Amino acid sequence: MAKRTWILLDVEEDQYVDEIRLTSADADGVPEGITIAKRRLRGGPRDGVDVVEVDNGAFRFTVVPTRGMGLWRAALGAVHLGWQSPVVGPVHPALVNLQQADGLGWLTGFDELLARCGLWSNGAPVFNENGTLRWGLHGRIQNTPAAKVHVAIDDASGEISVGGTVDEGYLYHHRLRLTTTYKTLPGEPGVRIVDEVTNLSDEPSQMQLLYHVNLGLPLVDPGSKLVAPVARIAPRAAGEWEKIDTWDTYHPETPGAGGVCFFATLLADADGWTRTLLSNAAGTQGLSLKYNSAQLPCFTQWKNAQPAANGYVTGLEPATNYPSERTFEESKGRVVALAPGESRTFELALEAHADAKSVAAAKQEVAKLQGSHKPEVLTDPDPDWSWV
Amino acid sequence: MAKRTWILLDVEEDQYVDEIRLTSADADGVPEGITIAKRRLRGGPRDGVDVVEVDNGAFRFTVVPTRGMGLWRAALGAVHLGWQSPVVGPVHPALVNLQQADGLGWLTGFDELLARCGLWSNGAPVFNENGTLRWGLHGRIQNTPAAKVHVAIDDASGEISVGGTVDEGYLYHHRLRLTTTYKTLPGEPGVRIVDEVTNLSDEPSQMQLLYHVNLGLPLVDPGSKLVAPVARIAPRAAGEWEKIDTWDTYHPETPGAGGVCFFATLLADADGWTRTLLSNAAGTQGLSLKYNSAQLPCFTQWKNAQPAANGYVTGLEPATNYPSERTFEESKGRVVALAPGESRTFELALEAHADAKSVAAAKQEVAKLQGSHKPEVLTDPDPDWSWV
Amino acid sequence: MAKRTWILLDVEEDQYVDEIRLTSADADGVPEGITIAKRRLRGGPRDGVDVVEVDNGAFRFTVVPTRGMGLWRAALGAVHLGWQSPVVGPVHPALVNLQQADGLGWLTGFDELLARCGLWSNGAPVFNENGTLRWGLHGRIQNTPAAKVHVAIDDASGEISVGGTVDEGYLYHHRLRLTTTYKTLPGEPGVRIVDEVTNLSDEPSQMQLLYHVNLGLPLVDPGSKLVAPVARIAPRAAGEWEKIDTWDTYHPETPGAGGVCFFATLLADADGWTRTLLSNAAGTQGLSLKYNSAQLPCFTQWKNAQPAANGYVTGLEPATNYPSERTFEESKGRVVALAPGESRTFELALEAHADAKSVAAAKQEVAKLQGSHKPEVLTDPDPDWSWV
Repeated sequence: MAKRTWILLDVEEDQYVDEIRLTSADADGVPEGITIAKRRLRGGPRDGVDVVEVDNGAFRFTVVPTRGMGLWRAALGAVHLGWQSPVVGPVHPALVNLQQADGLGWLTGFDELLARCGLWSNGAPVFNENGTLRWGLHGRIQNTPAAKVHVAIDDASGEISVGGTVDEGYLYHHRLRLTTTYKTLPGEPGVRIVDEVTNLSDEPSQMQLLYHVNLGLPLVDPGSKLVAPVARIAPRAAGEWEKIDTWDTYHPETPGAGGVCFFATLLADADGWTRTLLSNAAGTQGLSLKYNSAQLPCFTQWKNAQPAANGYVTGLEPATNYPSERTFEESKGRVVALAPGESRTFELALEAHADAKSVAAAKQEVAKLQGSHKPEVLTDPDPDWSWV
Repeated sequence: MAKRTWILLDVEEDQYVDEIRLTSADADGVPEGITIAKRRLRGGPRDGVDVVEVDNGAFRFTVVPTRGMGLWRAALGAVHLGWQSPVVGPVHPALVNLQQADGLGWLTGFDELLARCGLWSNGAPVFNENGTLRWGLHGRIQNTPAAKVHVAIDDASGEISVGGTVDEGYLYHHRLRLTTTYKTLPGEPGVRIVDEVTNLSDEPSQMQLLYHVNLGLPLVDPGSKLVAPVARIAPRAAGEWEKIDTWDTYHPETPGAGGVCFFATLLADADGWTRTLLSNAAGTQGLSLKYNSAQLPCFTQWKNAQPAANGYVTGLEPATNYPSERTFEESKGRVVALAPGESRTFELALEAHADAKSVAAAKQEVAKLQGSHKPEVLTDPDPDWSWV
Repeated sequence: MAKRTWILLDVEEDQYVDEIRLTSADADGVPEGITIAKRRLRGGPRDGVDVVEVDNGAFRFTVVPTRGMGLWRAALGAVHLGWQSPVVGPVHPALVNLQQADGLGWLTGFDELLARCGLWSNGAPVFNENGTLRWGLHGRIQNTPAAKVHVAIDDASGEISVGGTVDEGYLYHHRLRLTTTYKTLPGEPGVRIVDEVTNLSDEPSQMQLLYHVNLGLPLVDPGSKLVAPVARIAPRAAGEWEKIDTWDTYHPETPGAGGVCFFATLLADADGWTRTLLSNAAGTQGLSLKYNSAQLPCFTQWKNAQPAANGYVTGLEPATNYPSERTFEESKGRVVALAPGESRTFELALEAHADAKSVAAAKQEVAKLQGSHKPEVLTDPDPDWSWV
C-alpha cells in the first residue's frame, strides 16, 4: 500500500507549508476530480488559522489543524453539514479564553461540525471548593494547534488521508497525544476518522474523549428525526424544557428553549459498530454517524431548539463518558485509565445522504441493529448516568 | 450618492486584503491629497494587528480593526490627539487576558485615543459572591477583532468612510453586533462616527456602551480646561484626591495622584447634540468632542494626573451609563434593553483645533449650549449615580 | 568601539524585519564563519514566534524575542544545552494562559534553556484570601514579546550582540523594562548576558528576577554532578523525595520523583562573581553557569528526576530571591526596591564544556572559590529561606 505523502507541518522538524493545492494537474498521483488544499485564513477572529480543504469529487470537508484537527464543515452536493453558531469561526485558539471564570470560555470558539472534547477532561466545568475553576467545559484539545499535519494519497485505492497530532499536557501534569487520521475514497459520500490517544508519560494517566457532532438548519428542520438503535435512553436532568417522549423528533425554532440532553446506550453489531441517522422531515437528506461503541460506549443527544439566530443545533455525541462533571464521571468509572505508553483507538465515520433512497437504506441499517430489542426509555434521569 | 467601495475584510465571504494604499495616483475616484492605507503591524505586542490609516489632507487618523475598530491616534497638523500609555500598542487582543482575576486585564491593552467599552457591560469589574470574576473592566468589544471592514469614497462629496462590524457573544449568551462607520470629508479637521448596536438574537437582550476618549500631554497641559455645558456634575466617590471645585481645570503631573472621576449630565440642543472642548492652557490647541446626548445621556470625566511616565491622561466619556458596576447601573435603569433584532444608533464626532481662533469659536458653541443655565455642582457623590 | 547594528524590531519606530541572514558573504563586517539569522517560526503552537539564531563559529544559540528574549537552546559541538520538556516550544505567549486559576499556566509554555522569571514577581503562585489568583507562577516577562530587538557586530573584536527590550506593566500598576544583551565573541564557547531592569515609573517600584537555566538528558546523566562553591545549602521543604545529602549528584530517571529544590548561597570572588559547573558523570561534557552573586544573591537548584518522557531536568537558578511566594520573600527582604528611574544590572554567562580538560579546568575554578570554606549543609529547611 504505497502512499504519496506531503508533510504540511512538523514542529519538531521545523517544517511548515504555508499554502499548497494538490490536483491531478498539480501533483503526480492525485486522482482526477480531487482537490486537497491547505491555506491560512486571514483577518478577523480567524486570522492565522490553518485549514486543509478536501474535495474527493463528491464529498467536501475542511479540517482545521489550528483548532485541534477539528472538522469545521462538510458537504455532499446540496447537503450541508454543520450549523450556524452565533460565533463565526473558525476562531483562533489564542482568542478563546478557556480560563473564563464560569468555565464556559470554550463556547466563544465553538462553531464546528465536529469538535473533540478532551483529552484530560470534557463535560461540564468543575470548580474547586472555593469556586475557582478546576476544569473548563470540554477541555483543551479543540483549542490546541496541531504539532504535525500531513496529507497522503494511496497509490492503489486513491484514498486520501489527512493526518495530524495534537499534544496536550505540560510539566507535572498529564501528557497525552491525539493522533488523528481523516480518510476518504474518491467519490465516497463521507469521511472516516481513526483517532488514537496515547499516554506519552511514564506514569499512569487518564483520559476522556467526546465527539461533538453538530448539525443545524436546514438539515435539522421541524419534524426531522434522529433514528438510533437505542438500548436505553434517559433525560440528563429532570424538569427540562423537553421531555423524553419526543427525543427522536426535532422541534421548530422555539424562543426560550434551553439546551436539553438525552443520555443513551446504543445497540451495536458484533464488532461494536453502531450508527445513528439524522434525517430531515422529508426524508430526502441526512447524515449517518457511525462509530465503534465498544470504544465509545456513551451517546449523548443534545437538542438546542433556540431560534436560528441563537444557534439552532443538535449535537450527536459518542464518547467515553457522559458530558457531566469529570468528577462525577470518574466516580462512575467513566474516565479511561491509560498505562504509561498505552494507546486507545477511537473510530467513527460520517456518511451524508443526498436522496430519499440513501436515507431509507440508512434507516434500514439502524433497524437491523435495533432488531426486536425494545428501547428502554426512562422518564427520569438515571442516577448512574446523571448527577441528580 | 454613488460610492466607490473597497472590501478589506469579510469573514463570511472569506475575503481579506493584506495591504492596500489608495491615493489619487493609485485608484480612480480618490481625491487629490488623500491617502487611505491598510496594513498589518508586525513584531512585538502589536504583531498581527491590522490598521487603516486615513489622511484626508488635513486630519489623519488610524482605525484598528483588530481592536474592535477602535481609534488609535489622530492628528491635525501639530495637534496630536491621544496619550502616552505605559502600554505601547496597539496590543493584539490575543495578548490581553480579560480574565485576569482582578478584572483589570483590559488595562494591559489600553492605549487608544478612542476605545469603546461594552457591549454587554462596561465599567468597574463585577465579581460573583465567591470572589471570582463575572464581568471584567469595560467588557470585550475593544479586544474583539472586526469581522468585516471596508473603506468607501463618495463620488460627489469625496467623503471617506471606514466601516466595520464587530460581533460579541456566543451560544447561550447575548449576541450583539457593533456596526461602526468613521466619516471624514477632504480637509475636514476631524472625524464623525456613527455606530449601530444590534441585538442579533431572537430574544430580548441588553447593552452598555461607553466611548473612552483619551487625551494626554502636551495638549492637556497644566491649566488646560474642559469646557462643557454642564447641567449637573458630581464626584464619583467621596474623599478622592481631587475635589469637585477644580473639575474643569487640569493639574500638573502629580506623583501619587489617583484616577478621579466626575459624573455629569450635559445640556444639549433640541436634537440632543452637545459638545465639550478640551483646550490647552494657552487656548491655542484643543479638541471638541461632539455627541448626541439623547443617545448617550451620561458623561464621565476621568482625570489621571499621574506623571507622564505613569500615563498622564484625561478621559472624556459619553456613554449610555456611568462606568460603575453593571449591576448598580442596571438597578438605576442605565442598561439599555434591546428587543430581538432591535438596533440603537450612537453618533459622535471629534474636531481638532489647531489655532486660537478655532478654540475660541468652539468655546462659543459650548457657551451657547450653557446659555443662562447655572451648572448644578454637587460636592458629594449622587447616590443615584454612584454606588457610595 | 565602532559597531555595525541591524535593527530587527522597534515598535515605537514602526520597524520590523521579517527575515534576515547575516554571514560574511551577505553583510560587510560579519566575520568569517559566523551566522546570525532572524526568522519567524510557522505552524503549531510556535506559529508567529520570532527567533534570532546565532552561530559564532563554535557556539550556537537561539534567542526568542517573542518570549521575552529568552534563550531557547544552545550547543557547542555535540554538547546540547537545554532539555526535553513535555511542551514542544517555543510556544507563542498568546497560547499561554497566565491566568489559569491554579496559577500554573506558565508551565504550558515552558521549555527553554534559560527562562527569566519576573519582573514584578516570580516563584510560587500567590492567591488572594478568597482563593482567586493574585500572581501566577514566575510572572509575566517570559511571555511578553520584546518591543525592540537589534543585533550588532563590533568592528574590532568581532563580538556579536543580540539586544532587546521587554516592557512589563500597565496603567495604575508597575512599569518595568528589561533591557537585555547577549554577547559572544567568534569562537567563544558560550554566551554572556547583561540585563538591566529599570523602573520607568515616576513612583517607587519593586522587582524580582530569577534566571531559570534548565538542563536535561543526556548531559545530566545518572551520576552527573553539580559542582558549586556552597556557603550554605538547605532543602526548600521537609519530607521531600530527595534528601540534602545527595544534592550535588543526579539520579537516574525515577517514576514518581517530584520536583525537589535546594536553596543556597554561593561563595564568590571579590567582585561578587561565582560559578557552578554541571558536568556529566564521565566528566567529559558540562556547562558552567557564571554570575554575579552580588546582583543575584540567591541560588536555587531544582532537581526533577522524573523519567525523560515526563521532563527529566535540573534547574540552576540564580536570582534576587528564592522562588517561594512573593509575599514571603518580601517579608524576608528579598524583593528589590527601585526608585523612580532606577536601574539594576544583572550579569551572567554560560560556558559550555566539550571535553574532559575543559570540565576539569572549570571544576578547578569552582574549587578556588570554595577554598577552605566548609559548606554549611542544613538537613532541614531554613525558616528564613523557606515558608515552612
